[in-house]
Amino acid sequence: MISSLLKFLAPQKKAKKTHVSKEEALERRKKFEQFVLDLQNHFVQTLQKYETKAVFLRDEWQRKDGHGGGVTCVLQDGNFFEKAGVNTSKISFPFNHGIAASMKERGKVFTDDEIKRYNIYANGISLVIHPINPFAPTVHANYRWMELYDRETNQTVDCWFGGGGDLTPHYLFEEDCKEFHQGFKNACDPYGQDLYKKLKKECDDYFFIKFRNERRGIGGIFYDDFLIEDSWDKTFEFAQKAGWATLNSYNTILERRKDTQYNEKNMEWKQIRRGRYVEFNLVYDRGTKFGLFTPDARIESILMSLPHVAKWEYMYKIEEGSEEEKMQKVLINPVDWI
Amino acid sequence: MISSLLKFLAPQKKAKKTHVSKEEALERRKKFEQFVLDLQNHFVQTLQKYETKAVFLRDEWQRKDGHGGGVTCVLQDGNFFEKAGVNTSKISFPFNHGIAASMKERGKVFTDDEIKRYNIYANGISLVIHPINPFAPTVHANYRWMELYDRETNQTVDCWFGGGGDLTPHYLFEEDCKEFHQGFKNACDPYGQDLYKKLKKECDDYFFIKFRNERRGIGGIFYDDFLIEDSWDKTFEFAQKAGWATLNSYNTILERRKDTQYNEKNMEWKQIRRGRYVEFNLVYDRGTKFGLFTPDARIESILMSLPHVAKWEYMYKIEEGSEEEKMQKVLINPVDWI
Repeated sequence: MISSLLKFLAPQKKAKKTHVSKEEALERRKKFEQFVLDLQNHFVQTLQKYETKAVFLRDEWQRKDGHGGGVTCVLQDGNFFEKAGVNTSKISFPFNHGIAASMKERGKVFTDDEIKRYNIYANGISLVIHPINPFAPTVHANYRWMELYDRETNQTVDCWFGGGGDLTPHYLFEEDCKEFHQGFKNACDPYGQDLYKKLKKECDDYFFIKFRNERRGIGGIFYDDFLIEDSWDKTFEFAQKAGWATLNSYNTILERRKDTQYNEKNMEWKQIRRGRYVEFNLVYDRGTKFGLFTPDARIESILMSLPHVAKWEYMYKIEEGSEEEKMQKVLINPVDWI
Repeated sequence: MISSLLKFLAPQKKAKKTHVSKEEALERRKKFEQFVLDLQNHFVQTLQKYETKAVFLRDEWQRKDGHGGGVTCVLQDGNFFEKAGVNTSKISFPFNHGIAASMKERGKVFTDDEIKRYNIYANGISLVIHPINPFAPTVHANYRWMELYDRETNQTVDCWFGGGGDLTPHYLFEEDCKEFHQGFKNACDPYGQDLYKKLKKECDDYFFIKFRNERRGIGGIFYDDFLIEDSWDKTFEFAQKAGWATLNSYNTILERRKDTQYNEKNMEWKQIRRGRYVEFNLVYDRGTKFGLFTPDARIESILMSLPHVAKWEYMYKIEEGSEEEKMQKVLINPVDWI
């Protein structure tokens, strides 16, 4: 899945050279991989308990060129989930001029010789969960570890973390928004007083459908090119806290909303909102776009993030004073939940 | 609708200066406007006769800045059509560096002074029809006239035609494909032996979802920056023939398919194909993309082209030897219908 990994590179702003031994570099990879596989397993097990009709299909795949692969876990057309995808992938591939150019914009310059010599290593988890019940929100998250290394010496030249999670409810429940954001705040707080606030803002800025002047959802956190105090250990610890927080708070929210009665109007509004989800993913999302434009990408894994069903209605009218309007207002003006 | 008109500029390859008097320029505008309004009315009347539940809503709108407006005719949630939009718009707006830059790539260079002095005039019809019955195809077409003119002297500096139509069936009926293409071939033939072939190829090349390696549909014709033998009259005559051919052949095809029985599987396949329609429009379509990125664009008119409902299924399987596979094969390898 070279494609969906390219996104990891996009927002790289400055290089952080990290001189570690080969053994240490491998050790780091192992630890991060263990984390994403654990998180994937727990997500799949936790979600499966809500579902009595469909089961998660586990698709292990390898890139044709042998440079890595992944595990795609997908459940669709269930009685609780419309579509739920929890993917991990681990891949190494030759650095190239296209990627180098996108890093150049962000202050990092490479010689032709370096480009020829380097490889990218990328390992991460990426998930999108769309429940059927319009009162149960959609969640998206991903956590990734990236390395640029010399193919011959295996020496790491540059490395960084990226990730985050964001919630897309169709109806507003303040306690759910607080739950989700508090989980991330707890993950952030040990690493700086303003860290949560900063990453929350980056999330609001990123998941913005500019032509609609609205966010995709109520946000969460978003970070990239990230290394806390230049410490791998600290940042890895943070990534784990954020990852487990995503699972725990989402599980709590699903428990709350799973039996909420809904009607046709609620379903229609959910589908309209899912149309906006499609708009964001296909028009703005860097990962999706890089993926779609990468040769030999695994399109099914990239577009797994799209909802099962989406709807577009000409001049859809939101009733004044309605629950739908309450939601819409928050999408236009993000709220500080904590 | 500055936005959806910007597409008219995108593929401009070379400039064709046309020295006409102000009176003649106005006369041309009038004639073209009359054509698109006539075509819009006839399309709306023709489609309305298939529908017994919903009616076309007619939305006349003006740009806030006073530089033009349009007529949006939309029918949705009918008992025959899911969504049908037939729009016309006529707009003048100041030329700008962004548009000039996109024309520069195509061989046309403007000085700062020219950019300041010039206006764009754009008039056209744009339509997308999505029937409910999976055996009745979706059609899209637009026909437009563009001028670049000096704001002070009203002198036309450059001008061109653009347009075309394409059909997106979900099931393959050879006679429908032939009908649609024959209509365009008849419109093209008086203007050159190879014209239809050329414009048919341009259409196949344009409506291509590269990451899927498939076309959006079975094509039709596509042209831009177009002036037959440098003659406005001839090209206008051609545009009219193409426009009326779209209506006539589509009407014939609807008549054939309107009572075809369908089942749930057919509906599902239609929704999967509509997902691909969304992918093309949001990821590739120049007009949509320019529109979405233009400030103060009328988003509702731009996204009217999206289907009412679209579906994404992970690893959707097409049965071997099925009617769905027959369709899919033609989307991968375009056919010469005539």
